[in-house]
Amino acid sequence: MSAASSALTLGFDADDTLWHNETIFEHVHERYRALLARFHDAATVDRTLFATEMRNLEGYGYGVKGFTLSAIETAIALSAGKISADEIQQLIALGQDMLAHPVELLDGVAETLAHLSGQYRLVVITKGDLRDQERKIARSGLAAHFRHVEILSEKNEDAYAALFRRHAIDPARFLMIGNSLKSDILPVLALGGAGVHIPYHLTWAAEHVEHAPNSHGRFFQIGSVRELPAVLTAWSGSL
Amino acid sequence: MSAASSALTLGFDADDTLWHNETIFEHVHERYRALLARFHDAATVDRTLFATEMRNLEGYGYGVKGFTLSAIETAIALSAGKISADEIQQLIALGQDMLAHPVELLDGVAETLAHLSGQYRLVVITKGDLRDQERKIARSGLAAHFRHVEILSEKNEDAYAALFRRHAIDPARFLMIGNSLKSDILPVLALGGAGVHIPYHLTWAAEHVEHAPNSHGRFFQIGSVRELPAVLTAWSGSL
Repeated sequence: MSAASSALTLGFDADDTLWHNETIFEHVHERYRALLARFHDAATVDRTLFATEMRNLEGYGYGVKGFTLSAIETAIALSAGKISADEIQQLIALGQDMLAHPVELLDGVAETLAHLSGQYRLVVITKGDLRDQERKIARSGLAAHFRHVEILSEKNEDAYAALFRRHAIDPARFLMIGNSLKSDILPVLALGGAGVHIPYHLTWAAEHVEHAPNSHGRFFQIGSVRELPAVLTAWSGSL
Repeated sequence: MSAASSALTLGFDADDTLWHNETIFEHVHERYRALLARFHDAATVDRTLFATEMRNLEGYGYGVKGFTLSAIETAIALSAGKISADEIQQLIALGQDMLAHPVELLDGVAETLAHLSGQYRLVVITKGDLRDQERKIARSGLAAHFRHVEILSEKNEDAYAALFRRHAIDPARFLMIGNSLKSDILPVLALGGAGVHIPYHLTWAAEHVEHAPNSHGRFFQIGSVRELPAVLTAWSGSL
């Protein structure tokens, strides 16, 4: 076994784990509801936009560009074509603002990663638009802590299994940290890895799951990344 | 040196090297010019759309989603807001049609890759939307021939150098095959690798370069992928 595969590897989700993201989307959703308020109530707008996003997910994948296209499509449908070209241009500009938004790290992330990068092999495992995620990592000031950055089109069991093969990672010596039980925790637990769930105060509807996992000793839930070193000491001590 | 790094590696560009792509864009451009013909002549439409794409490239990156957003933005600007919501919906549908388009391999690709995959380590090195490129590779029927698939946000010297490090590839034992001198050939030659240029009958303006490279023994130009095995015999014999 090589040195790489015997090391303990920590996978970090990016959006809403390392930096704020859903708060930016929530602000855009508010503007979007206001733009369509003369046609439909907020609940109808939210429900229809989400349905459009889910219908387009196979083609667009995750990220700001697909969101913007779905928002335009939904605005045209909900306004029965009465939305103006100027308002559609406002939606395009909103998307561009999201792509240009500064990266705001979550509290404790910078110090904790600096501390952990000396002891563990750290990798980023995220999904979304390729260039957008690369830019956020570059702007975050965190890039030097990570051995690899993996931007995936989906984070499910197949994708994690392929990643483990690609980097010769033993799942039993891998722990994933993220805000989404569905994308960050459940598939990794299913493959024999460990997971630390750090909930963000907002969760996109597509990431909701009904039940918390039950994997004694391999699943942890904490309120802040600052609690991560203590959890890791417990986890690594049990291996 | 590991077995992997002593093997000869062939990198294949995807769009317009393995399968047709620019022909699909060209068809969409024709529909786009027709849609805006009542506002501006075709040359103005083409020039303005290209300028919008280049301005948005840093934010959007390559691919169909960014193209569609730039096409909508340009249509609003060139029509001074007179383009209808229905016409904008037509642009969204055009983009979705592009994403759903069947993968049509170039002549000779299937047989040539089947032949080469027994002798060389083959990798795909492409750029564009993550999910779109993954889907095309899956649909192409070629996936089993490739050791790795690398979808990059840009194909320049830095990106190739990082890829060589990541996969322990010796540039002197690497040859890239593609239709773009700018993205596939010049950066690889600059790093000490070899390149085979197979021009496609259409080239996107952003991929144009003025001068063909002059790297004796490391640069080849052929008319069809069917000529590739003969070129590779010459190249590998010279190493």
